[in-house]
Amino acid sequence: MNSILVRIIIGSKSDQVLCQPIQEYLSEFGIASDFHISSAHRNPEKTMKLVKEADSAGVKVFIACAGMAAHLPGVIASHTTLPVIGVPLKGSTLSGEDALFSVVQMPPGVPVATVAINGTKNAAVLAAQILALTSEEIKNKLIAYKKKLAEG
Amino acid sequence: MNSILVRIIIGSKSDQVLCQPIQEYLSEFGIASDFHISSAHRNPEKTMKLVKEADSAGVKVFIACAGMAAHLPGVIASHTTLPVIGVPLKGSTLSGEDALFSVVQMPPGVPVATVAINGTKNAAVLAAQILALTSEEIKNKLIAYKKKLAEG
Amino acid sequence: MNSILVRIIIGSKSDQVLCQPIQEYLSEFGIASDFHISSAHRNPEKTMKLVKEADSAGVKVFIACAGMAAHLPGVIASHTTLPVIGVPLKGSTLSGEDALFSVVQMPPGVPVATVAINGTKNAAVLAAQILALTSEEIKNKLIAYKKKLAEG
Amino acid sequence: MNSILVRIIIGSKSDQVLCQPIQEYLSEFGIASDFHISSAHRNPEKTMKLVKEADSAGVKVFIACAGMAAHLPGVIASHTTLPVIGVPLKGSTLSGEDALFSVVQMPPGVPVATVAINGTKNAAVLAAQILALTSEEIKNKLIAYKKKLAEG
Amino acid sequence: MNSILVRIIIGSKSDQVLCQPIQEYLSEFGIASDFHISSAHRNPEKTMKLVKEADSAGVKVFIACAGMAAHLPGVIASHTTLPVIGVPLKGSTLSGEDALFSVVQMPPGVPVATVAINGTKNAAVLAAQILALTSEEIKNKLIAYKKKLAEG
Amino acid sequence: MNSILVRIIIGSKSDQVLCQPIQEYLSEFGIASDFHISSAHRNPEKTMKLVKEADSAGVKVFIACAGMAAHLPGVIASHTTLPVIGVPLKGSTLSGEDALFSVVQMPPGVPVATVAINGTKNAAVLAAQILALTSEEIKNKLIAYKKKLAEG
Amino acid sequence: MNSILVRIIIGSKSDQVLCQPIQEYLSEFGIASDFHISSAHRNPEKTMKLVKEADSAGVKVFIACAGMAAHLPGVIASHTTLPVIGVPLKGSTLSGEDALFSVVQMPPGVPVATVAINGTKNAAVLAAQILALTSEEIKNKLIAYKKKLAEG
Amino acid sequence: MNSILVRIIIGSKSDQVLCQPIQEYLSEFGIASDFHISSAHRNPEKTMKLVKEADSAGVKVFIACAGMAAHLPGVIASHTTLPVIGVPLKGSTLSGEDALFSVVQMPPGVPVATVAINGTKNAAVLAAQILALTSEEIKNKLIAYKKKLAEG
Repeated sequence: MNSILVRIIIGSKSDQVLCQPIQEYLSEFGIASDFHISSAHRNPEKTMKLVKEADSAGVKVFIACAGMAAHLPGVIASHTTLPVIGVPLKGSTLSGEDALFSVVQMPPGVPVATVAINGTKNAAVLAAQILALTSEEIKNKLIAYKKKLAEG
Repeated sequence: MNSILVRIIIGSKSDQVLCQPIQEYLSEFGIASDFHISSAHRNPEKTMKLVKEADSAGVKVFIACAGMAAHLPGVIASHTTLPVIGVPLKGSTLSGEDALFSVVQMPPGVPVATVAINGTKNAAVLAAQILALTSEEIKNKLIAYKKKLAEG
Repeated sequence: MNSILVRIIIGSKSDQVLCQPIQEYLSEFGIASDFHISSAHRNPEKTMKLVKEADSAGVKVFIACAGMAAHLPGVIASHTTLPVIGVPLKGSTLSGEDALFSVVQMPPGVPVATVAINGTKNAAVLAAQILALTSEEIKNKLIAYKKKLAEG
Repeated sequence: MNSILVRIIIGSKSDQVLCQPIQEYLSEFGIASDFHISSAHRNPEKTMKLVKEADSAGVKVFIACAGMAAHLPGVIASHTTLPVIGVPLKGSTLSGEDALFSVVQMPPGVPVATVAINGTKNAAVLAAQILALTSEEIKNKLIAYKKKLAEG
Repeated sequence: MNSILVRIIIGSKSDQVLCQPIQEYLSEFGIASDFHISSAHRNPEKTMKLVKEADSAGVKVFIACAGMAAHLPGVIASHTTLPVIGVPLKGSTLSGEDALFSVVQMPPGVPVATVAINGTKNAAVLAAQILALTSEEIKNKLIAYKKKLAEG
Repeated sequence: MNSILVRIIIGSKSDQVLCQPIQEYLSEFGIASDFHISSAHRNPEKTMKLVKEADSAGVKVFIACAGMAAHLPGVIASHTTLPVIGVPLKGSTLSGEDALFSVVQMPPGVPVATVAINGTKNAAVLAAQILALTSEEIKNKLIAYKKKLAEG
Repeated sequence: MNSILVRIIIGSKSDQVLCQPIQEYLSEFGIASDFHISSAHRNPEKTMKLVKEADSAGVKVFIACAGMAAHLPGVIASHTTLPVIGVPLKGSTLSGEDALFSVVQMPPGVPVATVAINGTKNAAVLAAQILALTSEEIKNKLIAYKKKLAEG
Repeated sequence: MNSILVRIIIGSKSDQVLCQPIQEYLSEFGIASDFHISSAHRNPEKTMKLVKEADSAGVKVFIACAGMAAHLPGVIASHTTLPVIGVPLKGSTLSGEDALFSVVQMPPGVPVATVAINGTKNAAVLAAQILALTSEEIKNKLIAYKKKLAEG
């Protein structure tokens, strides 16, 4: 079995239906992942623990999804030097600009690699692109995927 | 000497000129405060320590100021049950809407009491209003202050 | 029976379904509240009366909810030195940015402690955080609540 | 001497330079006005008094200018049946959208006749258009003004 | 029978359901109105004719409703010295900010008295406030209306 | 001498410095133009005359520049079947979003070909692209221009 | 049979229902078109080929429709000197402002003639206006169309 | 000498002062880069060539900076499976929201890893985080950098 390369964390159980498919998208590239629900604000200790133990456990990339004042990707980025991919989510009142700003406007030194609002698919593809730097197999799957996209 | 009732934390040294006066505003209400520079993203451990040790040290209210993806007030709120006042700051590219959304749009259970963009004065007044619930002296100073405001 | 510590005022009957639950949220912290419908614009006299008589009646915190040009929290704040928590509400045309700006962008000297758009739950929690400064019982309930949040 | 037909109220002394010229614009149409600085939030009693005594004093139209959470025009409108013209002002952080929303998005029953951000000239012209319904002289001046505009 | 005092013009038949009630709101104040569908862009000649013949026909106030690039109120204002009340309408893609900006941001010299997005009721009340300057009867109805509002 | 193929109209003399260079940009493609200042709101008759007489005078394309509630391009489009290129201009308070929405959000049937905020250069290039459909010479100049762009 | 004068390209099959009617709108002006689905991002080679071979095939105008980061119109414009009409589309999260900015804010030298969000009808009318410069027949149909619009 | 691991492309010479320092930031992590000016719209062929030849030349990550309708990062991403980091730039009229939307709102299958508006420093740090997956040396430099950040 593959070891876990991507750790996905979402801030709220209510986003699980939207975000769980990231695991499937990753598995199309042969990438194993785990999936956690841990709010930056309600579970700061658990979140920190999930981040800090990840590196030694072999995780290479984080994907974090959150809405509203979407601090989760930034909080993860504050505790690791691994790349963190942030997915801002559309909320129940605003259309996701609040989450987009909260995810992308990180201060110098602590980046979050932000994808589109609700862009769960692209979070997986970006993770694959990053991991392809260390895996010929993933690289080949990405090339095949890009061809399939073009064939539409 | 009064004990420290308000802990002010700002995310970046570059905001000190704008935010240091909060201490003066508070002292007009006879409220002692301390002032720290500690980024939620660059100094997560120090920030957490400043929050966790505050309660036992007698701090009653936090004021946190940050720009861009302004997570600092929310991160503080995640580690305490004390009231946290958040001041979103205007940044070098956007006008502060990014910070406003990042500060105010907190998820259910973890509020930040948000004031206007760059609203440092009101952060102090709000802290005084909260502390006046436990101090007749601050209450009287607030009443006098409100009269002075009205006299213009 | 507990005395009323929080006065909730909403601007329009049409917001009652959304806002009435604030009383239940408060009662989870053992906090008694009353609930009024009084528009800043249609009932200025009644609104003012509700504010002015509150202090002597023992009210410690206001919660005001309004949409569109949401002046209600600011109008309340203009007549009291008690802390005023403002909840901007999503309207029928805009998504609540109009209400957010109208609530949060208060001028120096008259703050409103603003929470998220439609953030009724957080208005209650923030009121509890403020009142916990004067009540060990509420403080303990807040600590228990924070633990429950973390447990998810 | 003409009696005062327009009462101009601004919320802050800092807006006087921008707003005082409204009196000159009005005088070009032969309209007498008075000018007051009275914040809706810092001077609610004075503001209310300025509004309530206006009708019997012969005032026919209000012009109110305010920035940020610009409640002043709406507060005036809550206390009178006279037409209230609102001028949202650009603030020090935002470009005036906050004031625009706070002025224009009034609830059903209490309108504010809103003009452009910083639109002091148009506040005066609109007041003249309204007063022209009762004065042939102002009407003729408006017609002449419109011709002059067209001649550029 | 009363003569027509208010001319209502909307830009598109699709807005009729939303805007036709303005006539009922006006009739509650005893104000007679007529109602026309005439786009500023598709019927510029008809629109101009409706404006130019209005003054001599006794019309005192225009109400114009339009969505998207809502030029109708401004085009009307360019052809008359009568007060023009503009109602920006929510569109099928944007929430009405496009219409709001197009209606309110008029250049110096040609004001439009703008009310809230979809604020048809307030357009009628504002027209009544303006016409009350020339009619004790409308004034009394406005005072009664304001009382009824306050009683809720 | 070439006949005038493009008529440029701007809404305000204050925009002349920004917009006059459009004539030079056009002349680089060998296209003759004339330039008028005529507000849609202050000079509706003159504006209409400039539009209506253009077609028979041989004009093939309009370029219209305006800020704020930028109705000029739309008003022109309402009176002609010639293509109208609209340039929204940055204003003194807002950054040009008001003008962008007012220019681009035209209703079905009456398009304005909108370019970027302050995009005067592109208005000229777009006019050249349109006119190149009828002129091999302009087409060749466009191809040369595109090569020069690529060479940087 | 008429030769193809307009090439329509859309970025995603999911937009076909909204955009296919452009062909019907064009055919009302007697204009033949073809219709392609080719993403700027997923099919860059195909898109480029569709653009480059168009000119020699007799295509005179492009219409490109895309949502989100709507690069398609700009990418087409980078490869041709023919006029490119861009239609920004409303997306599943945002209301189309993202697409509007991505389509209209083109850099100097490479314009896109932008119409309203979801403004498919106007894309066709604008194409007809451009093609009418070379066809008396289309011109006459446009004049008839404009009359029909005015008759409502 | 190190081989080039990061290829930086900016869309306009006018952005060079802002963006050239990315090379220095990268060199602090011991990462060699090259720097090109090549607009997606003015130099599509050159841009494509820079992308397509990069992979075989050993480039591992792209950084692309652009303002306005900032298509450059997306265009690069359409031609490669390497990770593309996009930096939206503040423009001369808008504050960078246009560029942010154009960079981040990429369609499913073709992600751009977006950082803050004008976030050149974070583009370099993110590139280092990605490259650290294949280099213990860069990883150690990142850890040291994070410590230095925390020390402030």
